[in-house]
Amino acid sequence: MKETENLQQKVVALCKRRGFVFPGSEIYGGLANTYDYGPLGVLMMRNIQNLWWENFITKRSDMYGLDTAIFMAPDVWVASGHTANFNEVLIDCKKCKSRTGAEKMIEAYLESKGDFTKVEGLPVEELEKIINENKISCPECGEFDWTKPRKFNNLFETHIGIVPENKSLTYLRGELAQGMFVNFKNVTDSLRCKIPFGLGQVGKVFRNEITKGNFIFRTLEFTLMEFEYFFNPSKQKWNDLFEYWKEEMKKWIISLGISESKIRWRIHTDEERAHYSTKTEDLDFEFAVGFKEMLGIAYRTDFDLKNHMEKSSVDLRFTDPESGERYVPHVIEPTFGSSRIFLALLTNGYTEEKDRVFLKLNKLVAPYRVAVFPLVKNKEEIVERARKVYEMIQNKGLSVDWDDRGNIGKRYFAQDEIGTPCCITIDYQTLEDNTVTIRDRDTMNQQRVKIEDIFSKI
Amino acid sequence: MKETENLQQKVVALCKRRGFVFPGSEIYGGLANTYDYGPLGVLMMRNIQNLWWENFITKRSDMYGLDTAIFMAPDVWVASGHTANFNEVLIDCKKCKSRTGAEKMIEAYLESKGDFTKVEGLPVEELEKIINENKISCPECGEFDWTKPRKFNNLFETHIGIVPENKSLTYLRGELAQGMFVNFKNVTDSLRCKIPFGLGQVGKVFRNEITKGNFIFRTLEFTLMEFEYFFNPSKQKWNDLFEYWKEEMKKWIISLGISESKIRWRIHTDEERAHYSTKTEDLDFEFAVGFKEMLGIAYRTDFDLKNHMEKSSVDLRFTDPESGERYVPHVIEPTFGSSRIFLALLTNGYTEEKDRVFLKLNKLVAPYRVAVFPLVKNKEEIVERARKVYEMIQNKGLSVDWDDRGNIGKRYFAQDEIGTPCCITIDYQTLEDNTVTIRDRDTMNQQRVKIEDIFSKI
Repeated sequence: MKETENLQQKVVALCKRRGFVFPGSEIYGGLANTYDYGPLGVLMMRNIQNLWWENFITKRSDMYGLDTAIFMAPDVWVASGHTANFNEVLIDCKKCKSRTGAEKMIEAYLESKGDFTKVEGLPVEELEKIINENKISCPECGEFDWTKPRKFNNLFETHIGIVPENKSLTYLRGELAQGMFVNFKNVTDSLRCKIPFGLGQVGKVFRNEITKGNFIFRTLEFTLMEFEYFFNPSKQKWNDLFEYWKEEMKKWIISLGISESKIRWRIHTDEERAHYSTKTEDLDFEFAVGFKEMLGIAYRTDFDLKNHMEKSSVDLRFTDPESGERYVPHVIEPTFGSSRIFLALLTNGYTEEKDRVFLKLNKLVAPYRVAVFPLVKNKEEIVERARKVYEMIQNKGLSVDWDDRGNIGKRYFAQDEIGTPCCITIDYQTLEDNTVTIRDRDTMNQQRVKIEDIFSKI
Repeated sequence: MKETENLQQKVVALCKRRGFVFPGSEIYGGLANTYDYGPLGVLMMRNIQNLWWENFITKRSDMYGLDTAIFMAPDVWVASGHTANFNEVLIDCKKCKSRTGAEKMIEAYLESKGDFTKVEGLPVEELEKIINENKISCPECGEFDWTKPRKFNNLFETHIGIVPENKSLTYLRGELAQGMFVNFKNVTDSLRCKIPFGLGQVGKVFRNEITKGNFIFRTLEFTLMEFEYFFNPSKQKWNDLFEYWKEEMKKWIISLGISESKIRWRIHTDEERAHYSTKTEDLDFEFAVGFKEMLGIAYRTDFDLKNHMEKSSVDLRFTDPESGERYVPHVIEPTFGSSRIFLALLTNGYTEEKDRVFLKLNKLVAPYRVAVFPLVKNKEEIVERARKVYEMIQNKGLSVDWDDRGNIGKRYFAQDEIGTPCCITIDYQTLEDNTVTIRDRDTMNQQRVKIEDIFSKI
């Protein structure tokens, strides 16, 4: 356990030191469970999100994108069941007054005993029973002196309208999915699409959770990448589609560089599963703190469209253009947490060797694809030539770093730590024969390459 | 006036009909001033945002990206002056009970008289005086029977924590800029950057405004693209930098296809200017409803960093690595409203000709770069060959549409309306000589091209 906690701390420290992730509002002492992505973090995050979009939207003919508003009519969240079911069970320590999410606390306790039972979604009375039977004490102060656990809703509330007597309550969206369901008819009306098809988007969601975060693993706001795949249940078997998408999700995550040995599927228990789902599986990744959810897939049936039809009185059935059959489509929903993928990639790539630390990041996700070094900074021709190489790469739309400080070994070290796949050095020989040195992050091999051949090597 | 209103209505109708923009939460009767971007809208919006990022972040060595949290410590908004100064003046009609933003109402009234005076930021008493002197009546019911105007804050409030007795007030960010200021030290500590440099991001901001929206021109939530450019006021003149960035902003917006004749700079009056700014200019575009702000640039001096230094007690001064000078940098801030650019491009591109409507969109921003048509859908070889061309283009990462319905003329019409720059038809001749027809949206010219030469033509 010590070593893994150590790994987590190292990743967190690296993130701060090198500009991947900063604690939110840090100069004001921080705002718990919020984080800001720094210059390197945002480059890597954009890579992840763009690769997702390209793979699941652009390159597929059966998929369309959306970007729906964070504010929705409050009835959306009534119909979706979130005002009733989007809850967390909290319990207070009478001694130290700290408040804890009961489910996550019990699971952490059981895990420490080697028991991986999930208790999410169990009735409040059962959670209380487990706490009492196991004498689970407060994670903050170690005492066993609890209030009764209580349920609270996780939707953030806000009010539209600024005059006190005329404000109207609404929520910050707790999931992306409702944006897709509420626009189902708009999309089929405007695009004449054929079922099966998917609607996907990348966007922020908000959850007012009390549970402690494990760095960026659990935060108050986070960006999901998600799609709803609509199908006709009388023509396609849901479990075939479910397995198909599981495979696509896994293939994609491995294409980003996640090791296959560090992931595993886990089926949700009946109690744990969200209210809208008939089957849910998580693709867990072995984070520094153990196997935890990174991606998820759920079979939401026609639960959402049906409820919106009822609540809004708008007919959301789809008419098959050939057979004329009218039906409410069913839905498979793959969900990707972008900051969890981000954290998984850093954890997966963090490598310590004898005399260096490096991030083994796939070149598709690394913040910089390449770094360019002039060997010395006081020889004008070298700097000028290096600047030209730098600009040549930048103009191809690749992100590239420049470093002219200190000796080359230190510069390699600095780039290794942020996962730059290769470094290009321009030196005296460049002025003679137009070649540069390309050094590989993982093997540390160096080779001389003509400037015009650079793109084929990086 | 009638004709321009007509143009606005046509653009709005096209947006809905073809899947660019849908009214938010529409099946529930809509949520005022919220909109959802549909399948075509999101493709175009992504193009705009990616082009911005490439031009102002990736391709520049003096610029870094960020992605900061929407939730920030409430003190941030005290220090920034937003809790005190981020106001709107509202006035109620006693007859019809409707509530109106007084400043925008007065300006609309004056504009209708040919007077383009700006009144934003004037004291409440002066606004009241103008309304009374001009007998400006209620835009809803036409009566002149007002309450006294009152000031209200435009920040959306929410509470972190879900237990009633332990909730803490916070705000949804009202501007992106504070994320850059609060992280200034984190960035300079982790990147050892040299001044001048800029910090930019793309993200959602929220304004609880009562003023009516003009479609997506003014909404409760919207995505800004913005950067703060930090400089040393003892080394660089602010007005030189101000002019430099104005030029860069204009160049970029013209590169997207906005006509130079439809834009003009406008300097803010002293009253209108935000509390943090010494000089502000807007780049107005001639929307269907007249010239309105599309981009803005402000000289924020050291107002924000200084206030954060004072409020947080953290030293935010920058030390010049060469001279050792310690100082608080000043800031020039260019701001780009992505949905205003989106609307400007649609308005700018909307064209009616004798027997067709087309969107003259630059190929860099158009939702689809190209559309592929098999001439007939019942000849397998043609469909197969068309599918191959489609996939070839898709695999290059370009967005491409497929249409096999109806006659070719109708398909051209449908693509013209969504601004697709060119259409490729695969026909019987293709099977013989491997050529296709490429048809240009604007000229309607058609030419035969070998399949391997397609990319050089689109």
